Amino acid sequence: MKLIKGGIVAPKGFSAAAVNCGIKKSDRDDLALLFSEELCLLAAHFTTNNIRSGSVILSEKKARAGFAQAVIVNSGNANCCSGKTEIRDAEEMAALVSKRLVLTKSKVLVASTGIIGKPLPIRAIKKGIIFLVKGLDRTKGTRFSKAIMTTDTVHKEIAVKINIKGNVIKIGAAAKGSGMICPNMATMLAFFTTDAVIEKSALKIAFRECVAGSFNRITVDGDMSTNDSAFLFANALAGNRCIKKGSSDYFKFLKALKFVSLGLAKKIVLDGEGATKFVEIIVKNAASQKKANIIARHVADSSLIKTMIAGGDPNWGRVAASIGSSGVSVKRDKVDVYFGKKLVMKNGVSTSVARNALLNIFKKKEIRIIIDLKSGKSSDKIWTCDLTEEYVRINAEYET
Amino acid sequence: MKLIKGGIVAPKGFSAAAVNCGIKKSDRDDLALLFSEELCLLAAHFTTNNIRSGSVILSEKKARAGFAQAVIVNSGNANCCSGKTEIRDAEEMAALVSKRLVLTKSKVLVASTGIIGKPLPIRAIKKGIIFLVKGLDRTKGTRFSKAIMTTDTVHKEIAVKINIKGNVIKIGAAAKGSGMICPNMATMLAFFTTDAVIEKSALKIAFRECVAGSFNRITVDGDMSTNDSAFLFANALAGNRCIKKGSSDYFKFLKALKFVSLGLAKKIVLDGEGATKFVEIIVKNAASQKKANIIARHVADSSLIKTMIAGGDPNWGRVAASIGSSGVSVKRDKVDVYFGKKLVMKNGVSTSVARNALLNIFKKKEIRIIIDLKSGKSSDKIWTCDLTEEYVRINAEYET
Repeated sequence: MKLIKGGIVAPKGFSAAAVNCGIKKSDRDDLALLFSEELCLLAAHFTTNNIRSGSVILSEKKARAGFAQAVIVNSGNANCCSGKTEIRDAEEMAALVSKRLVLTKSKVLVASTGIIGKPLPIRAIKKGIIFLVKGLDRTKGTRFSKAIMTTDTVHKEIAVKINIKGNVIKIGAAAKGSGMICPNMATMLAFFTTDAVIEKSALKIAFRECVAGSFNRITVDGDMSTNDSAFLFANALAGNRCIKKGSSDYFKFLKALKFVSLGLAKKIVLDGEGATKFVEIIVKNAASQKKANIIARHVADSSLIKTMIAGGDPNWGRVAASIGSSGVSVKRDKVDVYFGKKLVMKNGVSTSVARNALLNIFKKKEIRIIIDLKSGKSSDKIWTCDLTEEYVRINAEYET
Repeated sequence: MKLIKGGIVAPKGFSAAAVNCGIKKSDRDDLALLFSEELCLLAAHFTTNNIRSGSVILSEKKARAGFAQAVIVNSGNANCCSGKTEIRDAEEMAALVSKRLVLTKSKVLVASTGIIGKPLPIRAIKKGIIFLVKGLDRTKGTRFSKAIMTTDTVHKEIAVKINIKGNVIKIGAAAKGSGMICPNMATMLAFFTTDAVIEKSALKIAFRECVAGSFNRITVDGDMSTNDSAFLFANALAGNRCIKKGSSDYFKFLKALKFVSLGLAKKIVLDGEGATKFVEIIVKNAASQKKANIIARHVADSSLIKTMIAGGDPNWGRVAASIGSSGVSVKRDKVDVYFGKKLVMKNGVSTSVARNALLNIFKKKEIRIIIDLKSGKSSDKIWTCDLTEEYVRINAEYET
């Protein structure tokens, strides 16, 4: 597996475009398009939030067919809770794109991200679509990844290539997400492309596993978006022998797809609003994976732990208090806690490890907290970031 | 019912004392004692955290008897996760107090608050107890309430008197709590005193109802302490006819006790670390109280909503996103949201209410958010505060 350039347009047959049509107050791009010259197999996941954007409702419905060829994305407006226009506007965006690309409407998906509760400026978008379709080419992967940003401070894209029986297969991806990031479809938006030839069910299973192991394992602030969507387009242009479920080719493809999705998920955490640290919470030897997951998420979402990391202060007592209050019954006398490789609490009691050694661990950019329950054989992990004054500033000042 | 002075020593027969014995680095009081000249009926509630302080373990065991006459409290050290010394130290504190007050050990309770993971400086405490017992008098209610503070910026005490069939009955209380405040015994520490004559079961039921409706309905940061404890001492010195469960006297007493506990709970929220606003989240017309409670807590603990309130920005879309992600299934098309008295979302859609009117609501010190699910007849409420840069500063800089 090798890292390559190009992002979402790295795989054969994909092109992208982005324009500013006036949704954002700034002159940054706010409308983007991804297009495949061939019809794609589609795998997709959407937010589990009960209150969801019209764009999500429409795309989820279309995605059921399992095929797509383009997706139009707007940033700066979530197209959510703005009324009956939501689905109509999303449909209109898709219809305009499909007309200009000469595709059937059902092949064009829609994604939105931004402020909730305001109607889409559909006129401006209509106008933008004309330029958008004209601008499609194979150089605008990075521009696409920048156009979908809201409070993100960096754009996020990755592409890799692998070799399967002499055929080069590429996977590209772009994502955005910074706030309102929490377990269960945390990306807000992620777009994956591949030119692999792969059977439909294998594609679906691989993507489900990737989303579960990456985007659904991160949390910035415990707030789940109304608009989270992840799409994987596979246009089969690589010409490889079809990848079948369970084959060695499948596991090679899965490994590359995981690498890409995990890479993007980590980029989102590192670009978490105000974040300065990447934090991995591992819960080991729990009675079940579910219990490990609940504790890891509870610790990851603790404001006291996140501010402790922001302050570089190795106060493991806050971790102990959080473990105890997760709702999962734990035996205190069995619980070990590690900061990095240092055992700070053994069987529920302070180990009196030197404070200086811990301070050094907390100075690092990446911090690992391991919780060993010694009560079973299951484990899980969650990635998060610290909670800084900057997070509060961003979210207190974010303009509605 | 009338507000009176004196705090926890307002009721007949109670005295208090406080000293600095050297637990805190500053010269502020860090050891406090509450004493009743007569044996008291006791009602008590403790943290539901699985990982709990030795002081909680000991006091919970003693509280089962239902009687007590004194409680010693230290601030600056949680006596938690520091090893086998925890319970022994708590026992020793109680034993020393009981010896000096000539009481049986079982009548003296212990409470601790402060940093987790460090052994109590038991020698310093022993020395402090000598002065503490000597200092007991009926003027030190306020000093007691100050001695139990940690990151609190104000001391918290209330006392009231009521008249039951010609007898004056007094209720006094002191509490501390500022961070690590979350539903289910959020006080960290609360002490109630009364001179009422009341039957044991009535006292227990009244206190349970008060704790559930006050301390268990507040959240500052969703982090639950290892040390939360609430005690109610009733020494029967008022000489009234015994208050029986379900009588009109009982409801009069209950009303006064609720007033005091609710008052203290609100003081804790308002003194939440870095807090500048008091926020009431009301969920109405839910299918069950439990569902209403889950949604109200979820919204109250949302960092995005708490920072929005800090910024004075009426972005109700964040409330919609939070309602949808609480885990409780809601029908979006039925959900109304109010900021103060203004309807901002009706049936899941923006009402386009004037932004200026909302800005004025958000300038107030107390903000009410009402969520009407129109899906049943149950309701619940949670009190919380905003999340400010100051919260992060306090918790990033809090010295371990």
